Amino acid sequence: MKSKRKIINDPVFGFINIPNDFLYDIIQHRYFQRLGRIKQLGVSSFVYPGAQHTRLQHSLGAMYLTSEAVKELRSKGHEISEDETSGVMAAILLHDVGHGPYSHVLENTIIQDVSHETISVMLMEKINSEMGGKLDLAIKIFKNQYHKKFLHQLVSSQLDMDRLDYLLRDSFFTGVVEGVIGSARIIKMLDIADDKLVVEQKGIHSIENYLMARRFMYWQVYLHKTSLATELMLIKILKRAKFLSSNGAEIFAAPSLQYFLNNDINANNFQNFPQILENFVNIDDSDIISAIKVWAQNSDKVLSILSKNFTERKLFKTKEIEFVTKEEKINFSRQYIDNLNVSESEAKYFFGQKTVQQNTYDVKTDGISVLFSDGSLKDISQVSNILNPTILSQDVKKNYLCYLKI
Amino acid sequence: MKSKRKIINDPVFGFINIPNDFLYDIIQHRYFQRLGRIKQLGVSSFVYPGAQHTRLQHSLGAMYLTSEAVKELRSKGHEISEDETSGVMAAILLHDVGHGPYSHVLENTIIQDVSHETISVMLMEKINSEMGGKLDLAIKIFKNQYHKKFLHQLVSSQLDMDRLDYLLRDSFFTGVVEGVIGSARIIKMLDIADDKLVVEQKGIHSIENYLMARRFMYWQVYLHKTSLATELMLIKILKRAKFLSSNGAEIFAAPSLQYFLNNDINANNFQNFPQILENFVNIDDSDIISAIKVWAQNSDKVLSILSKNFTERKLFKTKEIEFVTKEEKINFSRQYIDNLNVSESEAKYFFGQKTVQQNTYDVKTDGISVLFSDGSLKDISQVSNILNPTILSQDVKKNYLCYLKI
Amino acid sequence: MKSKRKIINDPVFGFINIPNDFLYDIIQHRYFQRLGRIKQLGVSSFVYPGAQHTRLQHSLGAMYLTSEAVKELRSKGHEISEDETSGVMAAILLHDVGHGPYSHVLENTIIQDVSHETISVMLMEKINSEMGGKLDLAIKIFKNQYHKKFLHQLVSSQLDMDRLDYLLRDSFFTGVVEGVIGSARIIKMLDIADDKLVVEQKGIHSIENYLMARRFMYWQVYLHKTSLATELMLIKILKRAKFLSSNGAEIFAAPSLQYFLNNDINANNFQNFPQILENFVNIDDSDIISAIKVWAQNSDKVLSILSKNFTERKLFKTKEIEFVTKEEKINFSRQYIDNLNVSESEAKYFFGQKTVQQNTYDVKTDGISVLFSDGSLKDISQVSNILNPTILSQDVKKNYLCYLKI
Amino acid sequence: MKSKRKIINDPVFGFINIPNDFLYDIIQHRYFQRLGRIKQLGVSSFVYPGAQHTRLQHSLGAMYLTSEAVKELRSKGHEISEDETSGVMAAILLHDVGHGPYSHVLENTIIQDVSHETISVMLMEKINSEMGGKLDLAIKIFKNQYHKKFLHQLVSSQLDMDRLDYLLRDSFFTGVVEGVIGSARIIKMLDIADDKLVVEQKGIHSIENYLMARRFMYWQVYLHKTSLATELMLIKILKRAKFLSSNGAEIFAAPSLQYFLNNDINANNFQNFPQILENFVNIDDSDIISAIKVWAQNSDKVLSILSKNFTERKLFKTKEIEFVTKEEKINFSRQYIDNLNVSESEAKYFFGQKTVQQNTYDVKTDGISVLFSDGSLKDISQVSNILNPTILSQDVKKNYLCYLKI
Repeated sequence: MKSKRKIINDPVFGFINIPNDFLYDIIQHRYFQRLGRIKQLGVSSFVYPGAQHTRLQHSLGAMYLTSEAVKELRSKGHEISEDETSGVMAAILLHDVGHGPYSHVLENTIIQDVSHETISVMLMEKINSEMGGKLDLAIKIFKNQYHKKFLHQLVSSQLDMDRLDYLLRDSFFTGVVEGVIGSARIIKMLDIADDKLVVEQKGIHSIENYLMARRFMYWQVYLHKTSLATELMLIKILKRAKFLSSNGAEIFAAPSLQYFLNNDINANNFQNFPQILENFVNIDDSDIISAIKVWAQNSDKVLSILSKNFTERKLFKTKEIEFVTKEEKINFSRQYIDNLNVSESEAKYFFGQKTVQQNTYDVKTDGISVLFSDGSLKDISQVSNILNPTILSQDVKKNYLCYLKI
Repeated sequence: MKSKRKIINDPVFGFINIPNDFLYDIIQHRYFQRLGRIKQLGVSSFVYPGAQHTRLQHSLGAMYLTSEAVKELRSKGHEISEDETSGVMAAILLHDVGHGPYSHVLENTIIQDVSHETISVMLMEKINSEMGGKLDLAIKIFKNQYHKKFLHQLVSSQLDMDRLDYLLRDSFFTGVVEGVIGSARIIKMLDIADDKLVVEQKGIHSIENYLMARRFMYWQVYLHKTSLATELMLIKILKRAKFLSSNGAEIFAAPSLQYFLNNDINANNFQNFPQILENFVNIDDSDIISAIKVWAQNSDKVLSILSKNFTERKLFKTKEIEFVTKEEKINFSRQYIDNLNVSESEAKYFFGQKTVQQNTYDVKTDGISVLFSDGSLKDISQVSNILNPTILSQDVKKNYLCYLKI
Repeated sequence: MKSKRKIINDPVFGFINIPNDFLYDIIQHRYFQRLGRIKQLGVSSFVYPGAQHTRLQHSLGAMYLTSEAVKELRSKGHEISEDETSGVMAAILLHDVGHGPYSHVLENTIIQDVSHETISVMLMEKINSEMGGKLDLAIKIFKNQYHKKFLHQLVSSQLDMDRLDYLLRDSFFTGVVEGVIGSARIIKMLDIADDKLVVEQKGIHSIENYLMARRFMYWQVYLHKTSLATELMLIKILKRAKFLSSNGAEIFAAPSLQYFLNNDINANNFQNFPQILENFVNIDDSDIISAIKVWAQNSDKVLSILSKNFTERKLFKTKEIEFVTKEEKINFSRQYIDNLNVSESEAKYFFGQKTVQQNTYDVKTDGISVLFSDGSLKDISQVSNILNPTILSQDVKKNYLCYLKI
Repeated sequence: MKSKRKIINDPVFGFINIPNDFLYDIIQHRYFQRLGRIKQLGVSSFVYPGAQHTRLQHSLGAMYLTSEAVKELRSKGHEISEDETSGVMAAILLHDVGHGPYSHVLENTIIQDVSHETISVMLMEKINSEMGGKLDLAIKIFKNQYHKKFLHQLVSSQLDMDRLDYLLRDSFFTGVVEGVIGSARIIKMLDIADDKLVVEQKGIHSIENYLMARRFMYWQVYLHKTSLATELMLIKILKRAKFLSSNGAEIFAAPSLQYFLNNDINANNFQNFPQILENFVNIDDSDIISAIKVWAQNSDKVLSILSKNFTERKLFKTKEIEFVTKEEKINFSRQYIDNLNVSESEAKYFFGQKTVQQNTYDVKTDGISVLFSDGSLKDISQVSNILNPTILSQDVKKNYLCYLKI
């Protein structure tokens, strides 16, 4: 029988091998293919037009890096079986499978209290039952229930292959070269100690560089003020659509999106009603974008103004602020009430506040261990003179007022 | 007044400057922004997952290369005014503005006999009237009605900046490194003779390299058999949707797409009914993709089977053939009739033939002139020993049978 | 008359234009061409085999970045005349012209107390007199005697084009991707305030990234322990050769190198005896490498052992230490005395100590000013939360014991 | 025992693994290390300042590609043992070990009728005897005496890893992007049929692209007219030095170079007198460059003029010609006789003719076989419509007159 082994052209890593039929079948699964219709960086393409890459590309890249890491760890004498290799590769392939389109937006609007990790697990379990249990090990690794803990850490930890891929990939597609990290060097420095993924002593500077590059990408890309404003705009649009819909208005949307506009869905529902999950996996970027263009013609003034501006890239403006006084809020509302002839409650759709915070490294939650030649382990923050814990773990917070300019 | 000058991060060229408000306003125009929702390579992303880049990115890149070419020509003593520079930059920014989503598909299904160039001109004229005639010069250049013919050639000719950008860009995003061309070197070799864009003698090998890289990209990317099959699949889907719609069925679609499913539109209509153009510019990739997912649940068996397979990336298979005999067609039909329980006319939606042909260089239509140091001009095919006209202009044709595997 | 304008292919920046005959003549000057025979990173190629790039390439790259910076500053309304542009470009072209081969080695062995900056000025003045004073302005800028101080800062300061080029270039040729900096972005952020080169507020993160990348390159490349050990080995070889030579031995060397082996040269001599400078500019990497191979056959045991090991890449080993006790030194000596049958004073040539220190940013000497939108200026260390002055300016010091393994 | 496994940073391929001690020891051998002092492209750095990369880097790169090719062939079911893998990697590591500095120059001047391949074998055999026969298999593969012929083809054939590396590498360091080839894709297409390295059918376009890129590099880099002229200049210098030396003049040179200036060495001598080989491996670029600078001060007018001009990059000019008439030669001589006050025989050192020819593909000697899915093999020239044998194998010849401008 001819194997389904395949090679995929990746602009970041060159050729990516799919080493066996098990992984090939996961990649071909409709749940995974759906990630090819969801942009990795959501609204960032409004700021960085190159940022069109999808969650599918990222997942393949993370799988590639995982296979590289496994090779490296094996070459250092750590035993990792073929099944474990396939398992951890499957786990990382599927680590983002629960993401919806414009995740942060959705999680604030049409679904409530359901994290994408939870949905990822649900979907993995569905694929698993379709594949007759072949995903058992992958799911254990993903949930950190497998006895070799370091495998989970390849999928999810401060040193996971997820982050290594997305930093490189987002840097590549946005054109922000400052995010380039030495992923190959970091992988060469990986080792295992006490069943934990650790970094060799000579990798300290590589880790510093990686944390700094990540910090840069946060401020320059992920938390870019125009992206934040665009995200808020999208949230306001979806909230309005849902509000109208729940008040009986007929709002155009593909049926699966319609379903979420018409119903209030929370985590419990997800578990109990399978059609919710089916509807969820049916939604991708295209449904949101296609609907908003239709909403630009809606009779509701709030929905149509916001949707038209969004479609024409007339985005919310931003202003960095300390905080907003009640008075300012009233003044802000006033201009929309006066100029757009809307009510007070409607005026609130045209502006809002976004608070972002970013701390480069948090000893408590992050934990990157450095392995010294004498076998001892220390946290990176103890041995790096720039990753000073008191400095770096201090949250940096910014507040933006985002608003429609009229 | 603060100028609107801006810089855009481009992964291919680094930073792209928008040098003046005129060009900035074009870029901000809703017709141009719409290109950000249309993938440059249409269905190629099914084969090359990196190929998510948009027509907006390509248009900005072509504008950048045009500004570089103008700089080079000026440095060689050719006079090009500020207005002409802005004009040719505007012309190339808008050269693809008339493209719909999945252009080749649309032009074979929901619109008839209307080329995207025709629509580009219509849209330029609409923008021009909105901008009070500021686009007059750009439109003249685009239509080749301006007396300095070489400016048109920067926009559209064998040496235009359109091709230089798309080869580089498509190569970059697909990861097919063989398409990399020396665009900077080619631009350094450009000159003008007899009001024609020509290449200096020492650029002969660069031109050969460029034509060969283009040839490679055709076979490896643009005419990739799986892309062709996917395109055919998409054509079949839209034809079926239109067929059903015209027979009175209620087919889900965003209103603007609906409009084209319900009406037969040709070039004449476009000229005479402004709402057609408005509906056209309202359609982008998202409407097609969003609708097809809904169609996967349609009661019509043909539409639902094709749409479901398309969504789940179960694409048509291909078989290179000399030609298909009548008998083979009947046999092919038979399997669908038998297995899917469809009629003979319905069976035709599940397979089809694609013929592609590509000739690397055609002396009659292409014409790249080489300028020798004695001032004489010769066609590249006369001076290159590999671009032998009898060899290279011979059409290479391939036939593929594309079909749903069941 | 045909201009000598030329274009140079640079793997880092693509094509570099030489915009006028003045700059072309400098590049063609024998003093400048000599930089093409001196590796930018000296002995680093023993660790990073790709690091073969020359000081000539770096100087051309720095010239290119300077021309980009001038363009940017002009576009922000700052007046910089054609003469000033050529002047600052000439100054940076020649900023390293006084470097000898393996600079740090030479400055510790065959010449004494003469910095390469001093020699650069001497050589600029010689070129200037050959060119009839055309370099007057460039020299003024280089010496910081020109009234527009920011021009000097483009050549020499925390934000100079020298550093931007060398970081990028050294990163490119060593393959250490972590050194990649956003030079184009930094240049876009440059401005002038109070006749000082400053960075716009939104460039803060770019500067942080740049200082961190520089820090990384220091530890990973410039201060790599094997490079340090190799440098020490080279110093020991040259010291021995000079010692033998001054004791009357006939040591093979090209005459200009011979001259420095036979004579003790200090800064005063340089000023007073023109033949010293002539001999100095006649020496490059090839003389050192060629001589050492001959010395490997020398009858002096110390010189031949060290030279043979150097040539065969049997480099000094390193051991990080706090400090060396007198006892350890004696023990160390002992092994060479015993095994190689050398005297106590000869034994000292086979080992030594190297101390390196690096501080990322020093407020007192470095000074990068950030320009805020309200026109105020602040030092980067006051506004960056990671460039905390107490942390970052603290010197990091390492001691290595370097020794021949026997 | 700690293994000597090491990783080398390569700017072209990232990290290169040295998988075992055997290969590590070869790399550390003084014969191999010497390649780090010989530029891969000889005088090309006079035209492309980035072309400083060494034969050592190239050999490591070719080793890396060989290991990739072996991996690929194994994955297609071809058995290649660990010993064979190490053997073929050792063979390609050492394939260029017999190169002297500026090979083409040396082979025309100070050595006669000795190809670098012959010297490579001699050196491999010397290393082999030092290593107790461990190189037996590698030498068999290199000499094509091993029964698995395809292993030799990885080292030397139209599809060898030598060419794949040098095209990519030379393209990278010169900055001539047009030479970029899809080495990874070509390797993915490799297979074995009838014990021969072949290319899968779907690799036809990749091979076309590769041959075209190679053709481009020939004209743009390897046969660049200024490189040719510089090479001729170097030949004239060495010939003159040898002439003077053989006439009893004392010509400065490092002893090993001196040896070749003083003695006429041919292939027979090499075999019979071991000191010849020892002297040969002692010479590298540095000896040539260092000596020429000294010769610039030589009392012989011919030697000093040529050497001074070479050092100061005042290179021979070129003129493309059909042929040179006897009369022209006399006229040319005349100007040097008159202006430089030299004799007729001396005048001949100041000019000369260079003939270059390049054919892209020669069916008779090249032979790239394509494997079709039905198992049949055809030569690429039969199946590619651009690699038409009558066109492409026709030699393209150019004649240049190269001369010192006075």
